[in-house]
Amino acid sequence: MAKVGILMGSDSDLPIMSKAAKLLEEFGIDYEMKVISAHREPDVFVSYAQSAESRGIEVIIAGAGGAAHLPGMCAAMFTLPVIGVPIHTKSLGGVDSLYSIVQMPSGIPVATVAINGAANAAILAAKMLAITDTELRRKLVDYKEDLKEQVVAKDEKLNKIGYDAYLEQM
Amino acid sequence: MAKVGILMGSDSDLPIMSKAAKLLEEFGIDYEMKVISAHREPDVFVSYAQSAESRGIEVIIAGAGGAAHLPGMCAAMFTLPVIGVPIHTKSLGGVDSLYSIVQMPSGIPVATVAINGAANAAILAAKMLAITDTELRRKLVDYKEDLKEQVVAKDEKLNKIGYDAYLEQM
Amino acid sequence: MAKVGILMGSDSDLPIMSKAAKLLEEFGIDYEMKVISAHREPDVFVSYAQSAESRGIEVIIAGAGGAAHLPGMCAAMFTLPVIGVPIHTKSLGGVDSLYSIVQMPSGIPVATVAINGAANAAILAAKMLAITDTELRRKLVDYKEDLKEQVVAKDEKLNKIGYDAYLEQM
Amino acid sequence: MAKVGILMGSDSDLPIMSKAAKLLEEFGIDYEMKVISAHREPDVFVSYAQSAESRGIEVIIAGAGGAAHLPGMCAAMFTLPVIGVPIHTKSLGGVDSLYSIVQMPSGIPVATVAINGAANAAILAAKMLAITDTELRRKLVDYKEDLKEQVVAKDEKLNKIGYDAYLEQM
Amino acid sequence: MAKVGILMGSDSDLPIMSKAAKLLEEFGIDYEMKVISAHREPDVFVSYAQSAESRGIEVIIAGAGGAAHLPGMCAAMFTLPVIGVPIHTKSLGGVDSLYSIVQMPSGIPVATVAINGAANAAILAAKMLAITDTELRRKLVDYKEDLKEQVVAKDEKLNKIGYDAYLEQM
Amino acid sequence: MAKVGILMGSDSDLPIMSKAAKLLEEFGIDYEMKVISAHREPDVFVSYAQSAESRGIEVIIAGAGGAAHLPGMCAAMFTLPVIGVPIHTKSLGGVDSLYSIVQMPSGIPVATVAINGAANAAILAAKMLAITDTELRRKLVDYKEDLKEQVVAKDEKLNKIGYDAYLEQM
Amino acid sequence: MAKVGILMGSDSDLPIMSKAAKLLEEFGIDYEMKVISAHREPDVFVSYAQSAESRGIEVIIAGAGGAAHLPGMCAAMFTLPVIGVPIHTKSLGGVDSLYSIVQMPSGIPVATVAINGAANAAILAAKMLAITDTELRRKLVDYKEDLKEQVVAKDEKLNKIGYDAYLEQM
Amino acid sequence: MAKVGILMGSDSDLPIMSKAAKLLEEFGIDYEMKVISAHREPDVFVSYAQSAESRGIEVIIAGAGGAAHLPGMCAAMFTLPVIGVPIHTKSLGGVDSLYSIVQMPSGIPVATVAINGAANAAILAAKMLAITDTELRRKLVDYKEDLKEQVVAKDEKLNKIGYDAYLEQM
Repeated sequence: MAKVGILMGSDSDLPIMSKAAKLLEEFGIDYEMKVISAHREPDVFVSYAQSAESRGIEVIIAGAGGAAHLPGMCAAMFTLPVIGVPIHTKSLGGVDSLYSIVQMPSGIPVATVAINGAANAAILAAKMLAITDTELRRKLVDYKEDLKEQVVAKDEKLNKIGYDAYLEQM
Repeated sequence: MAKVGILMGSDSDLPIMSKAAKLLEEFGIDYEMKVISAHREPDVFVSYAQSAESRGIEVIIAGAGGAAHLPGMCAAMFTLPVIGVPIHTKSLGGVDSLYSIVQMPSGIPVATVAINGAANAAILAAKMLAITDTELRRKLVDYKEDLKEQVVAKDEKLNKIGYDAYLEQM
Repeated sequence: MAKVGILMGSDSDLPIMSKAAKLLEEFGIDYEMKVISAHREPDVFVSYAQSAESRGIEVIIAGAGGAAHLPGMCAAMFTLPVIGVPIHTKSLGGVDSLYSIVQMPSGIPVATVAINGAANAAILAAKMLAITDTELRRKLVDYKEDLKEQVVAKDEKLNKIGYDAYLEQM
Repeated sequence: MAKVGILMGSDSDLPIMSKAAKLLEEFGIDYEMKVISAHREPDVFVSYAQSAESRGIEVIIAGAGGAAHLPGMCAAMFTLPVIGVPIHTKSLGGVDSLYSIVQMPSGIPVATVAINGAANAAILAAKMLAITDTELRRKLVDYKEDLKEQVVAKDEKLNKIGYDAYLEQM
Repeated sequence: MAKVGILMGSDSDLPIMSKAAKLLEEFGIDYEMKVISAHREPDVFVSYAQSAESRGIEVIIAGAGGAAHLPGMCAAMFTLPVIGVPIHTKSLGGVDSLYSIVQMPSGIPVATVAINGAANAAILAAKMLAITDTELRRKLVDYKEDLKEQVVAKDEKLNKIGYDAYLEQM
Repeated sequence: MAKVGILMGSDSDLPIMSKAAKLLEEFGIDYEMKVISAHREPDVFVSYAQSAESRGIEVIIAGAGGAAHLPGMCAAMFTLPVIGVPIHTKSLGGVDSLYSIVQMPSGIPVATVAINGAANAAILAAKMLAITDTELRRKLVDYKEDLKEQVVAKDEKLNKIGYDAYLEQM
Repeated sequence: MAKVGILMGSDSDLPIMSKAAKLLEEFGIDYEMKVISAHREPDVFVSYAQSAESRGIEVIIAGAGGAAHLPGMCAAMFTLPVIGVPIHTKSLGGVDSLYSIVQMPSGIPVATVAINGAANAAILAAKMLAITDTELRRKLVDYKEDLKEQVVAKDEKLNKIGYDAYLEQM
Repeated sequence: MAKVGILMGSDSDLPIMSKAAKLLEEFGIDYEMKVISAHREPDVFVSYAQSAESRGIEVIIAGAGGAAHLPGMCAAMFTLPVIGVPIHTKSLGGVDSLYSIVQMPSGIPVATVAINGAANAAILAAKMLAITDTELRRKLVDYKEDLKEQVVAKDEKLNKIGYDAYLEQM
């Protein structure tokens, strides 16, 4: 049964939002993924948002661009945490998405991550679920250890071969 | 029977949004005014937005600040025009409100006016209704004529008394 | 006889502004389309703006980029609604166009849509005309229904084939 | 035993950050509150961040302004969720704080709320803890119900006394 | 006979725009000053802009705020130089005014000065007229010399009394 | 003898700044063109700026990008008008250049044109010189007439062949 | 003999720039302080910048607002480090000052600190001089220790008296 | 023994940061270069920052993008100067990096250079070291002289072959 719902307002957000799915799989967290629009199908959206908790969803990750209302409207109807992913936009670079998601009024928070930060949204969801899941905490510690080892390896390579050779291999 | 619905997400928007009411009164257009929140009472909001058309509302004017979802969510559920008024915010000056209202996705337009431009929202509503109301067109022409006369009078005063005296009287 | 005038300050705006024309055709709304510049041919522009109403134009859609004065100057001379489309610009992404169009002074509103939002401008014009045209209201409801079905279909496809396959087909 | 750590980089952030404390008290969630600076006392900060989990902290709320590194550095050392509150700044309105907090690199998310959004940070922390705490879920539902009733009451008052009287009473 | 026309879209711009008048008086340059609105009285505006050259106006200084079209529309109709003064706005600080004035399309330049830079607009007008007026060149050199002496005097005072005493006298 | 000096801080600005040269040639105005850097060769720069007037230069056009000091430093040393061209930059789109050029302190104006607006800088220089040159005024009127005819021709073509055919030919 | 030159373009910058002087005094570093304008007295400025090194100046701290050219022009003429302090501006909050100072072209760096960050400019100058001055290094370590103790004291007070009492005493 | 530490948060910054290395080599200044992340390996980072001074590092150059905490966290732990290089970002162009680096709180300065300004960071480091190194001062004077000669050569070429030929050769 899915614990996390990954939502996106348009399938054009899928190249970004699929990164959240990949990472949840890596953490072994069940999820469901939906293209769902608060603007184009408000009835479908309201049904989803209102029934999500009873269907077992514990965290919603919602990505949207421009006047991005999907995360905030989820937060208005879902009791548990909503994570918002502002999607990059051509004209404003995603500042429009960011402001539309993060500047929520008092009472209705959205946990906002970086522009196009879908991977971080998944990690944040895992961190939330890890509060009462020690197995998941361990996986997060391992994941962090991996990140560290990657940096260490890159640093060692740079010091071994020098920046000219490193740049050639990039 | 109200033809225009003036909505605001919070009563803190009333000092701005009441300007729309005043101007609609001047044009003799019936309106209703509501404090209504898409975030804090989504069920009340959905009821309102879905029933507005059948109750005779022909234009909705919605003001909101920050992650301003009220105008866009109205536009998602109301077939006729929605005018959005971005409200000035302390930290971002209303750029957040403006982007959240104007950058709507394809299919769901909001007719956006200037930051704090509630008076213009009312004039825009009147212009929409005037398409098939010649009496209202005449009123709009008169209103424009008044604007012109005010500028002409100010210019005459400036040229009569000079800028020093004018500045003292401001 | 044209009910909507689609104006653009330069033919470089045509790839965007033609989307408004396409959508008006879809709604069965007669329109005229003009390349017209308030800056480069002010006399031609003034003639057009002042005579538009008497020639039956009920809504003007004006697209312009940079110091975009075309929509605002239309609004100064045309009694009925003017919809402004801010065109994307290379250096400022269209923020210059947006501010030049939306931040109109009190008395002279322009109904502003998103940067490059010409399709939404056409839908907004249709919404205005639909206030007294029940046939057009029905078309707008159908259009919205189509939008919904497209999202539903995409969501079904995503859940059927999974995100990896979906991404490959994009 | 404290479940939430409320941190601020400077006591000048206290007028904002105390709102988080007030709300956690309302929800009956134990918290600790610290003025702690990643820049001015990095050793104190590192000790705190590394020991927080073992001392039972489940969520950290960190507020900071300008080049706001406190939330992100917490996230680098704390396995469970970190919520960042960008504090309003005089010159840049808090955009500097927002970007410094939300634009975290892949692997190290900070759950960012609105500029000065400390109350929402507390609600978000409660939502996280409510994932496995049904009593807290109920409190969140009640809190939301209160928000709704406040809006309904304001709307009724507005419709009863009219906007002129309402404005006078503000 | 006036050589310079100082225009402003609203008398609310007079506190700023009067600085241009004061400086032109200092340089002994005849000017006329008008409150004139391209938006609220387009016919008055067009008459003015088209007849300015034949009435002997050699430079126009136009100040406007928000969607500031006055300078650009002057430039569209007046063969000689137009200087634009972007007026500070409450919500956007005058960035809207600046973009609306400076980002003119190819063919129609406006010589833009700083936000609220009306004094500099007058100096710029004097510089233009000084191209063929050696007496005015001399005045500009003297004016510059005065600026220098003021800085020198302030520096001497600072070094004489120290910064604490200087700050007390500010 | 050159009447206009076209300056640029780096030869990377030449693709833009050469447009000013082309247009001055079209107007028959003698000019000189220099790569000159206030930062990299301040002595060469000071010599140029201080001697320009005595060598007959009547207007300086200076283009620069980033922390663009060239136009402002020219204005500090040259009695006659300086026109600044903010050059587009990769990271900030030229907003840095624009602010560095337009926001000059009181006493030292730079006549700023649009980002990359070198053609307009040349037209503005011509407008300044035309104050006392009736032949040049006539050329400016002709140039404006050409601009108008180009728009008229594009509009006629659009109405003759329709937007689909027009788009194909672009 | 002064080792640090504190420069400001206008005495209106003194309330900010005097903080640099106070801190240098605290560190026991000799300095000179000047109101000097690259725009209003370029000859005075050039003399100063060119002779500073030979008079023993080792670091220049230059504060300026708007189109802030003072730090960059110093850097063009002074071989040793120049620290730039962007001064807050009314309309743009100091973003104009920041971009004008920090976005220097390759070859001519300015060490830029925060908007109004004059105290940090002094600390940065001390850090530079401390590279070869162990006594000054010790003072910097002590200064940092003081900063830490202040934070620790505030934290202890907060935990002793609680946030309500703390807020009352602010 | 290395005097300068060049740090970067990710190897994706190497194409920019290697320019600092190249320039330090040119000046004959020993350096070490590390990929090191304050977020992904805080323990490694803290070790490095705390031991840098004792290992002889006199200046740290740190480049980072987005919520760029590396330079500021170095400055919190290293007594001598830290130079920050804001790295260009796709969505926000590097404004996020710039604000995260330059807007440091009082007490902890970072000497910030332009977005992607790694070459200037190296020159700034050289300027700092040159305070007590006359040989390095001479090299900086020579470097500046080279910059000047390059501009002079470009200007001569432009005047010799004309802008059309020059553009063709670019």
